[in-house]
Amino acid sequence: MVDKNFYNVKENVTLAQVAEVTGAVLTDSSKADEIINDIATMASATGDELCFFYDRKNKAKAGEIKAKACVTTEDLKQFVAPEVIILTCDDPKVAFVKLNEFMYAEKVAENGIDVSAKIATSAKIGKDCFIGANVVIDENVVIGDNCRIEANVVIAHDCKIGNNCRIGNGASIAYSIIGNNCYIYTGARIGQDGFGFQLINGQHHRIPQIGRVIIGNDVEIGANSCIDRGALDDTVIGDGSRIDNLVQIAHNDKLGRGCVVVAQVGIAGSCTLGDYVVLGGQVGLADHLNIGSGVQIAAQSGVMRDIEPGNVMMGSPCVPFKDFMRQVAFLQKNSKK
Amino acid sequence: MVDKNFYNVKENVTLAQVAEVTGAVLTDSSKADEIINDIATMASATGDELCFFYDRKNKAKAGEIKAKACVTTEDLKQFVAPEVIILTCDDPKVAFVKLNEFMYAEKVAENGIDVSAKIATSAKIGKDCFIGANVVIDENVVIGDNCRIEANVVIAHDCKIGNNCRIGNGASIAYSIIGNNCYIYTGARIGQDGFGFQLINGQHHRIPQIGRVIIGNDVEIGANSCIDRGALDDTVIGDGSRIDNLVQIAHNDKLGRGCVVVAQVGIAGSCTLGDYVVLGGQVGLADHLNIGSGVQIAAQSGVMRDIEPGNVMMGSPCVPFKDFMRQVAFLQKNSKK
Amino acid sequence: MVDKNFYNVKENVTLAQVAEVTGAVLTDSSKADEIINDIATMASATGDELCFFYDRKNKAKAGEIKAKACVTTEDLKQFVAPEVIILTCDDPKVAFVKLNEFMYAEKVAENGIDVSAKIATSAKIGKDCFIGANVVIDENVVIGDNCRIEANVVIAHDCKIGNNCRIGNGASIAYSIIGNNCYIYTGARIGQDGFGFQLINGQHHRIPQIGRVIIGNDVEIGANSCIDRGALDDTVIGDGSRIDNLVQIAHNDKLGRGCVVVAQVGIAGSCTLGDYVVLGGQVGLADHLNIGSGVQIAAQSGVMRDIEPGNVMMGSPCVPFKDFMRQVAFLQKNSKK
Repeated sequence: MVDKNFYNVKENVTLAQVAEVTGAVLTDSSKADEIINDIATMASATGDELCFFYDRKNKAKAGEIKAKACVTTEDLKQFVAPEVIILTCDDPKVAFVKLNEFMYAEKVAENGIDVSAKIATSAKIGKDCFIGANVVIDENVVIGDNCRIEANVVIAHDCKIGNNCRIGNGASIAYSIIGNNCYIYTGARIGQDGFGFQLINGQHHRIPQIGRVIIGNDVEIGANSCIDRGALDDTVIGDGSRIDNLVQIAHNDKLGRGCVVVAQVGIAGSCTLGDYVVLGGQVGLADHLNIGSGVQIAAQSGVMRDIEPGNVMMGSPCVPFKDFMRQVAFLQKNSKK
Repeated sequence: MVDKNFYNVKENVTLAQVAEVTGAVLTDSSKADEIINDIATMASATGDELCFFYDRKNKAKAGEIKAKACVTTEDLKQFVAPEVIILTCDDPKVAFVKLNEFMYAEKVAENGIDVSAKIATSAKIGKDCFIGANVVIDENVVIGDNCRIEANVVIAHDCKIGNNCRIGNGASIAYSIIGNNCYIYTGARIGQDGFGFQLINGQHHRIPQIGRVIIGNDVEIGANSCIDRGALDDTVIGDGSRIDNLVQIAHNDKLGRGCVVVAQVGIAGSCTLGDYVVLGGQVGLADHLNIGSGVQIAAQSGVMRDIEPGNVMMGSPCVPFKDFMRQVAFLQKNSKK
Repeated sequence: MVDKNFYNVKENVTLAQVAEVTGAVLTDSSKADEIINDIATMASATGDELCFFYDRKNKAKAGEIKAKACVTTEDLKQFVAPEVIILTCDDPKVAFVKLNEFMYAEKVAENGIDVSAKIATSAKIGKDCFIGANVVIDENVVIGDNCRIEANVVIAHDCKIGNNCRIGNGASIAYSIIGNNCYIYTGARIGQDGFGFQLINGQHHRIPQIGRVIIGNDVEIGANSCIDRGALDDTVIGDGSRIDNLVQIAHNDKLGRGCVVVAQVGIAGSCTLGDYVVLGGQVGLADHLNIGSGVQIAAQSGVMRDIEPGNVMMGSPCVPFKDFMRQVAFLQKNSKK
């Protein structure tokens, strides 16, 4: 049950509305005026709640659904408990997203600039922005329209941020050009010097880092993740890429469009990733690698060589997924006795 | 030697007091009025300092102790250098904690609310709290008695925090209900959106996250760790659990009581951990796993399947500890020409 | 091309100046008055830009250089495209650092103390410091000359920071003594309680942590990295050590001089590292280990035993590098078919 203290909830939603919003078909049209008041999980939904069922692995549990209604597929509806009102569609996960967006909304503070924010006179702030307490916006920064810059964010000189962006509280932005519709989470560190130094007379001497971070449109950067700016080139995150929490992206890395980088991944410097690359949690990439489009790398893998497009890899050092499974089986079988 | 600039130190503690505070027995009662002025390690304690000796592995070093007094066990006291005054007890580690708490205390700022804190008029702050500089407390937040909310903390609307809690500087709290006696360390991020999205027309579309984070009593969350709020369900951390620094806990995870999660662990979404589960440093868990009570997973292990209660596991993918050791031995033996 | 919005760039640099600054020799002295306006990579440099070529692996690409001038070695200059003006020196990487420092500089805010900074009256701030917005400096803190303390930094009571230090925005410093010329990056957490507790009556009871963090001269600590203070002893980071982002260093760890700790490394408590130890990304060390000087540990390795000086190790648990490569080859060969 969604906590109405935290979220604005649209109540008394009819199943006709559910059908309209999600594109699902109500199998018994006489139920069009039945109302639901919440979305819940298959296991917990009761009373006037609706749930979604889309994973065949849960078919046994579908028989125990106690929700008033369930959105599922034509194929899976046979497994749902008979008392439950059924709506069907091709992709209940998409329906879930749509209904979720229709019924719930975060409570957001009103637009405006907090009196404690410190904004350089040369900075430009777009229309309808929220600038929270203690925000620092330095010289020549440009921020687009409809942005939410939360409390204690620091945006260093000359950064540019597009429209409809949200910067979570306590985040740091420097030497960065950020597109539209981006969400940088709390505590993310974007644009600091990369980890580069040169041994001169037995001392590590810092190599000045004089590049930038270029972030496309529709990008998310997770909480406490770090993206170092380029050393000479730029660090680039392509449109639509999603980066989870506590990820490290080093100087000069270039990620293509729609990449998915799960929590605690570390990408060493000067790597190039194609489009729609997926890196599982805690994956590590050595430096200067080329990872082709569509490559998927399983969690905890270590990558030491270039990978051609479309491969699925696992292990440290990683090998094709099937080879890894064979290695595991071989080792388990032969080490026994 | 404890730095008295940083800590308040009780000086001139007699061995009679040590015995009283720790429950240890002074083997030579004529020494009851001898005083100590500090606790130090076995290797470094000298002069009027006291040390603790509880690990049999250090028995050779016990002969070199230069402390005035040593708390140890009946069993181990034979190894201590003869000049040292001995106190014995069943568990010197517990005695250490007790004497430590008796002799040392952090210097804490006086209670009160800093003038720069921004506290919504609808928020409720308990008695005897410290609210530091630049703290932001949003609408309807409730904070209990005796809490320390350090500088630059941001607590979003409608969160509830129990009594005797400490929130380290720069931490972010949102969509959370937190119990009593909790310590959230500096820079921790609690309650941000989980990493959930759905491919719609070739674009990653964010799935609204409408759950909460529920934290029990006596919980610690380490520095810069991240706990995402639930997607629909809640993310839950059970009473007495201890989470180290830089840990990632994803949406809908549920940890039981007394779990210990060492630094840099990553737990993917919708995992359920029983009570007193121990995860070593850098362990990774795949999503939707059930980990039974009392399970211990060695550092750097990767968990891809459910684990029954009480098992000790190691490796990536993890196997029972003995199997892992056999695999390591097999590989080392057979790979050498 | 370096973005002049972000950096101050010295223009119209003659090759005579390049030779003077870097110590390189201009092979055709008639070109001494030719000017360059930027440094760029081998692949991207064109027009009036200069590049550096020092890696023999790139010799094929050297033939395609379109820069006006290139700094390389006597040995490698034969591979450079004939139109390019050549300067030679023993170590072009060092030359790069020197020219980079000569031509580019970060734009820094003017010295001074922001009105919103909260500085205890007992704190001492040296000459020519920058203290940013919302900084909190507690009782008895001492900060040297020429320091940059960026916005939202919190420095707890009694800490000491040397000369020429930079503390990135949003960082937390407590119970710490920091030398000269240190750079603590944004969001780093230094000096919080270590992860120590004792089971007393079935409950995890926190062990008070009463040590400090001692950081030498010329140290860098990366963004969002965590260094816990000592439990009883101190945690120590030796002169010239470089710690990358998202690294965890636990209580009582002692790092020697010039250590290099790459991103997401985790070092458990009470480890001792010699001088010039290199830990690759995501390496994990168990507690109470001794790692000799000059040891190099490859990325993602797990260390469970002491390592003698000078060894190169890999794997989890790690073994000598050659043994690891043999294990990988053995497994790949024998698991097939």
